[in-house]
Amino acid sequence: MRRPPRTAALALMAGLALLATNCSPSPSATVATTVSEASGSAAEGPPNIVIITADDLGYGDLASYGHPNIRTPHLDRMAREGQRWTSFYAQAPVCSPSRAALLTGRVHLRSGMFGRRTAVFFPDSLTGLPATEVTLAEALRDQGYATGIVGKWHLGHLPEYLPTRHGFDSWFGIPYSNDMDWHLPEGMANRTAYFAPEMDYWHVPIMRNEEEVERPADQSTLTDRYAQEAVTFIESHQDQPFFLYLPHTMPHMPLFRSEPFEGHSTAGTYGDVIEEVDSAVGRVLETLERLELAANTLVVFTSDNGPWTSFETHGGSAGPLRHGKGTTFEGGMRVPAIFWWPGTIEPGVIQDIGSAMDLFTTSITLAGGVVPADRPIDGVDISPVLFGTGMTPRDSMAYYRMGELFAFRQGPYKVHFVTEGRYGLPPARTEHDPPLLFDLRVDPGERYDISTEQPTTVAALVEAAARYEANMTIAEPLFDLRGG
Amino acid sequence: MRRPPRTAALALMAGLALLATNCSPSPSATVATTVSEASGSAAEGPPNIVIITADDLGYGDLASYGHPNIRTPHLDRMAREGQRWTSFYAQAPVCSPSRAALLTGRVHLRSGMFGRRTAVFFPDSLTGLPATEVTLAEALRDQGYATGIVGKWHLGHLPEYLPTRHGFDSWFGIPYSNDMDWHLPEGMANRTAYFAPEMDYWHVPIMRNEEEVERPADQSTLTDRYAQEAVTFIESHQDQPFFLYLPHTMPHMPLFRSEPFEGHSTAGTYGDVIEEVDSAVGRVLETLERLELAANTLVVFTSDNGPWTSFETHGGSAGPLRHGKGTTFEGGMRVPAIFWWPGTIEPGVIQDIGSAMDLFTTSITLAGGVVPADRPIDGVDISPVLFGTGMTPRDSMAYYRMGELFAFRQGPYKVHFVTEGRYGLPPARTEHDPPLLFDLRVDPGERYDISTEQPTTVAALVEAAARYEANMTIAEPLFDLRGG
Repeated sequence: MRRPPRTAALALMAGLALLATNCSPSPSATVATTVSEASGSAAEGPPNIVIITADDLGYGDLASYGHPNIRTPHLDRMAREGQRWTSFYAQAPVCSPSRAALLTGRVHLRSGMFGRRTAVFFPDSLTGLPATEVTLAEALRDQGYATGIVGKWHLGHLPEYLPTRHGFDSWFGIPYSNDMDWHLPEGMANRTAYFAPEMDYWHVPIMRNEEEVERPADQSTLTDRYAQEAVTFIESHQDQPFFLYLPHTMPHMPLFRSEPFEGHSTAGTYGDVIEEVDSAVGRVLETLERLELAANTLVVFTSDNGPWTSFETHGGSAGPLRHGKGTTFEGGMRVPAIFWWPGTIEPGVIQDIGSAMDLFTTSITLAGGVVPADRPIDGVDISPVLFGTGMTPRDSMAYYRMGELFAFRQGPYKVHFVTEGRYGLPPARTEHDPPLLFDLRVDPGERYDISTEQPTTVAALVEAAARYEANMTIAEPLFDLRGG
Repeated sequence: MRRPPRTAALALMAGLALLATNCSPSPSATVATTVSEASGSAAEGPPNIVIITADDLGYGDLASYGHPNIRTPHLDRMAREGQRWTSFYAQAPVCSPSRAALLTGRVHLRSGMFGRRTAVFFPDSLTGLPATEVTLAEALRDQGYATGIVGKWHLGHLPEYLPTRHGFDSWFGIPYSNDMDWHLPEGMANRTAYFAPEMDYWHVPIMRNEEEVERPADQSTLTDRYAQEAVTFIESHQDQPFFLYLPHTMPHMPLFRSEPFEGHSTAGTYGDVIEEVDSAVGRVLETLERLELAANTLVVFTSDNGPWTSFETHGGSAGPLRHGKGTTFEGGMRVPAIFWWPGTIEPGVIQDIGSAMDLFTTSITLAGGVVPADRPIDGVDISPVLFGTGMTPRDSMAYYRMGELFAFRQGPYKVHFVTEGRYGLPPARTEHDPPLLFDLRVDPGERYDISTEQPTTVAALVEAAARYEANMTIAEPLFDLRGG
């Protein structure tokens, strides 16, 4: 209990919520009522949940995380009025596994959302997120929520793996990354196409529910259309609890923004793209306030992994952190995370370790549900931190890459067993024995290896990592299953 | 005029202030009255000026500039209620020249505050800031201000060069850097002493006015005592306009903090030290508010140069910027800069290029004075930006090192003619022909040289730099004059 409870009602709520994760059946009606009273709004029932993600957004890409040029007033406002977390992690350094973990509350190895040769799903993938997984959408739908996804899925594009088969009532967006199918002119390199993103190079479709409605997608209006779809979803469901998952396609390469945002920023095309995403966030907040839903809605903004730095100025920045997407250095997985729920969240900057998996457990708990008891769940309930009434039970973080444990953090310390650059960046794969050791408190940039000075710390982390791995159930890797 | 004027009175004031820099004698009484009316306070007369600097504080070391662990609530508050500048520069990458420029409004070459072999003043230096220079303290004293310095001087320790000979009514602090004289035990390396800063290693004195009052200084209480001295100075001069210059000794190595701040941060000793500096800032703000002076006081916080990164976790972080102290990469000279003047400064994040030299011209203008007309002055009046009524005339920045122009910025572009690491960091001195070219808008980290793609931009900057150098008057370098 590092912070004083805001109100007795909130303390009670947090206590009940913690209880709810351990008991079945849950006292969901009680929790829901308490939430409503605590939030001090006229809204009734459990809170709405809105999870917005950007794609390949780096730790250093927002004004509130120190970017000198990119302006993000709506995200700044969320940070000012809510909580800005500085040690929050995507669960993987690339897209598909990270998204699987967010939606299932489980390390992606448990659901087979990895490969030994393939890092993510591709348009020729033969599989997707298994039907046996319980997604956040399914769990919240069981609690009476309307569920919608607006944006990029990337957990299997074949019909049986689509969002609508995983608990979402509706979907508008693209099935995999925006660079994953293309029709390049003769002799043109794909890399060149990234920097000259004319429409007809790229061929990714837009889906509505299970129908392809546009191909190729007009990506220049994608962020704008996502925002409009999100507004419509909220307006359509203002009389019932809803879960909106809004995984933006941008700023994944190739970069597109709508006409009003061309030259909008002083930070080039990348800055324009981030500023349009920020504007889209603002439209969601404005809609919640206009419909008087803000006091009963948790809004979360985060990223699926670090910045794609090998595209130089068309990729983002990890700020003070080392490397980016595809690596298990902090720049690959530590991402911005902002929580907004006016009147309920205790404003501040939070240094606790958080994981995207925690959004699963926390959301279900707030909704008065219980997380699945028939399988290991890795997400924890962080609502005590959000409400300023208590702490998170999480004190560690595992960094997997291609099914292999590359690094492990316990408290402030992090060991690297293996490091590897990717997406064109050094260093190449290197195994470390003894592992590298960094103290992330004083060295968030992972510059100063202290393994020789602190061998007992290394030994303690090696042991903790071994215990963690011993408890990890690993499914068959599904990303390697690809067709002709 | 990128921002709408806040009030007609402010617009008038800005206009008069601009006029004042071009005319002599100045309409100082008119300006002063207008300032008082515009600030909306009961205070009368020209505003008080408080300039607080930290020593070797990096661009990335404050929470509002993206540090993940260091907590700086008082500086965060200044940023939230005032302006946070993201492209503000110390005028040199090391201490003495940077401080000379801040206090004289002139590039340090003009005042001889450089050396060809010696980077800063040392305890065996034979010279100091020439008496012919006009300091901000002298200029403001001429306008009726009480003037005080609390902290590190580093512009000559011999009697004729002390702050009291340069316009300050009073001084409490140290004459040069806190690591510059020492009594090490037999066989102990100076570098080791930095990390084990027992009191009796270090021998720097504390001065009050022109008397040595303590030697060695008890550095562990230095930040705390500076804060107390600042509070006393403000309390003693609440009935007249005052200029307080508060150049903290910390976080220059060796690091010291008082007992209440041991373990105060989660970011090690360096974090503790910054958090104590932040607390000292808070005590200044609290005093101004308690005495009802806040509405008539401009408070500025900045750093003298970038972080001393070769001391690893005992040095700071430049965040997203490259390298640190002693280099002419952005990390060496771009520093945090926060302006606070409640009710008068238009809150926001400012991307304009600013220089510590601008504090000289702006402060004198606000005081109703005129900058010296008998010599080149490089500082410009940034009050139109502070008030939200206009723009700064500055669009370039020159990066000198040891008397040599290493790099030049014009608008968003920066060329490097020479790069050199120092303080133990690579790279070694390298001359670049053609110069390196970076676009700081999209590449603030100076990672992607675009000189081959943009030869005409390179040519334009080479020409602009040549014009700049042609107008630079260079005095004899004084740092090389050292005694036995």
